[in-house]
Amino acid sequence: MSKFLSKKLCNLEPYVPGEQPKNRECIKLNTNESPYPPAPKVMEVVNKKAVEGLNLYSDPDAKILVDELAKFYNIRSEQVFVGNGSDEVLGFCFLAFFDEERKACFPNITYGFYKVYSKSFNIDAIEIPLKDDFSIDINNYINCGRNIIIANPNAPTGLILTHQEIELILKTNKDRVVIIDEAYVDFGSKSCISLLDKYPNLIVVQTFSKSRNLAGARLGFALASKEIIDDLNKIKFSFSPYNINGLSLVAGVESVKDKKYFEECKNKVVATRERISVEFRKLGFIVIPSKTNFIFVTHNLISGEEYHKSLREKGVLTRYYKQPKIDDYVRITIGTDEEMDKVIKITDKILSELLPICIGK
Amino acid sequence: MSKFLSKKLCNLEPYVPGEQPKNRECIKLNTNESPYPPAPKVMEVVNKKAVEGLNLYSDPDAKILVDELAKFYNIRSEQVFVGNGSDEVLGFCFLAFFDEERKACFPNITYGFYKVYSKSFNIDAIEIPLKDDFSIDINNYINCGRNIIIANPNAPTGLILTHQEIELILKTNKDRVVIIDEAYVDFGSKSCISLLDKYPNLIVVQTFSKSRNLAGARLGFALASKEIIDDLNKIKFSFSPYNINGLSLVAGVESVKDKKYFEECKNKVVATRERISVEFRKLGFIVIPSKTNFIFVTHNLISGEEYHKSLREKGVLTRYYKQPKIDDYVRITIGTDEEMDKVIKITDKILSELLPICIGK
Repeated sequence: MSKFLSKKLCNLEPYVPGEQPKNRECIKLNTNESPYPPAPKVMEVVNKKAVEGLNLYSDPDAKILVDELAKFYNIRSEQVFVGNGSDEVLGFCFLAFFDEERKACFPNITYGFYKVYSKSFNIDAIEIPLKDDFSIDINNYINCGRNIIIANPNAPTGLILTHQEIELILKTNKDRVVIIDEAYVDFGSKSCISLLDKYPNLIVVQTFSKSRNLAGARLGFALASKEIIDDLNKIKFSFSPYNINGLSLVAGVESVKDKKYFEECKNKVVATRERISVEFRKLGFIVIPSKTNFIFVTHNLISGEEYHKSLREKGVLTRYYKQPKIDDYVRITIGTDEEMDKVIKITDKILSELLPICIGK
Repeated sequence: MSKFLSKKLCNLEPYVPGEQPKNRECIKLNTNESPYPPAPKVMEVVNKKAVEGLNLYSDPDAKILVDELAKFYNIRSEQVFVGNGSDEVLGFCFLAFFDEERKACFPNITYGFYKVYSKSFNIDAIEIPLKDDFSIDINNYINCGRNIIIANPNAPTGLILTHQEIELILKTNKDRVVIIDEAYVDFGSKSCISLLDKYPNLIVVQTFSKSRNLAGARLGFALASKEIIDDLNKIKFSFSPYNINGLSLVAGVESVKDKKYFEECKNKVVATRERISVEFRKLGFIVIPSKTNFIFVTHNLISGEEYHKSLREKGVLTRYYKQPKIDDYVRITIGTDEEMDKVIKITDKILSELLPICIGK
């Protein structure tokens, strides 16, 4: 730390992203990326001509992408805001809508970045405990007097709230923004986009990093009322006007256009998830029913930390959280069928190597 | 504005970037981009394979680019921070090093974003007037008790401070950060990087958008002490860990590697600038001697606003600032020789069309 760092940031605890290995020989199931390449046309439009044109700034309004998303979701372009990954979108939301009076609340087990943003911007935040079954108790969010952020489906649990539950939260917090982070919504749950017209306090945040196979392109977006999108644009033009680079812009457009490929890829992920959940259960794991592109698993013969470490030694990266209540779980991204079959085999081996020890005890 | 926007931001005046025309048929000399394409190898590495790999996150440490910049500038990798354009780098600097006690000061005529950041983050800022000849009076910055930001060369004037002058500022403000924004340094002035070892309060900020022909890739960087870079990383990992996309990462590396092309392009820009400055003077313009890739010009027969507008009508985009003291000037980016010859021809025509009116008066 330098002596120049603002005192209010001295206790900042930055987010620790999952490891991005320099050698890609391992099976990478630790950061919930898609195992499939971007839509075929993405490879066509990010071509020599597009790269040659990088001497010029990209469009600060990101108009072609905003328009394409509006078309896809059947809303108006003025209701769409695009950011350099949904992390930036969420960061701008914190900058815009949170302050000393507009405090935050979110589940105590959820995407770790909500807590980090709160600390970054000195926002008072309450972390509301999940129920014992890892579900969100919406009673805690009714008339709560704070801005609310809920990942739906939630991470790393993979569980969802229904539209009725979310509507109840929206309805009883009309003077507060309610951010529904739908990073994983495409893998089997229903988006809140249809609620936008009814609730001007709703912000839906989504990402290209999961179901759109473009984590490396850094694209995320918010859908909300025109007024909220105007506010986000005000923040963007006061921080980083050219936030979307020229290549991600054209890549994003083609990715949205190819609905068929989008459906195919997410259906494959869902099919693999369902099949592999059964396999894990056969090996004695508890697998929380997931509506995402990952599963959250635990086993009574091996601690989460130990299982995570053993997988790592055998070349499989997963995510482990040393955090009360979930420290016996491991989060495993759904890879290709081949990758997941290998994980099952490796897991079987890890368990069988354990067994003699257990019996020996 | 929504009713949810934080009250402290209600008076925010976002930066207004230069127009990015959707049709590229005009001569675009309004946002100081390079007229030349990126280094040839950039087109090679942003290939089908790289695009196919976009399903995976990019390296949050941007290690290959950090290392390449360290090598190029002969400093340690731990002294390099890379951002999504230098706007993001400057934004992170404001977040990290400025607060209620650590106030800001910068010239009243300079890159407009410094003022915007100050407002965005509620930082008390003093704008110090330039001298009548547009030069910075360094006496105002000695022992000034505030964090200092100086664009060197300054924009839109194109004028520079010497190392001796900058050292005096650094030496007399040891408890404050001094940010030297060197966006245009490669076009004929000397970087402060050599001062880094001597002054732990120095932050040098540079960009790939001008001399490295990669405005559309969104890459900027800060060079400073390890401690300052650690602070910037702390901010980044608390805001947008994967801030550099995968394609810009490899593009940036190749751009830094190709020193010969880098030299060639900037030498061409400098040669064009010098030649065209003479041409403008022949037409009766005052041209401030520029050390950048733009010139700042004024003419006593036509107002800045009128000249800017006439150029626009004839398909030439330039930048005009309706701001006291410089509102009779127009900022013109240095394009290719062909583009600049056209601008001279068009300007000649504009002036000759004026002349009868002037005589008529």
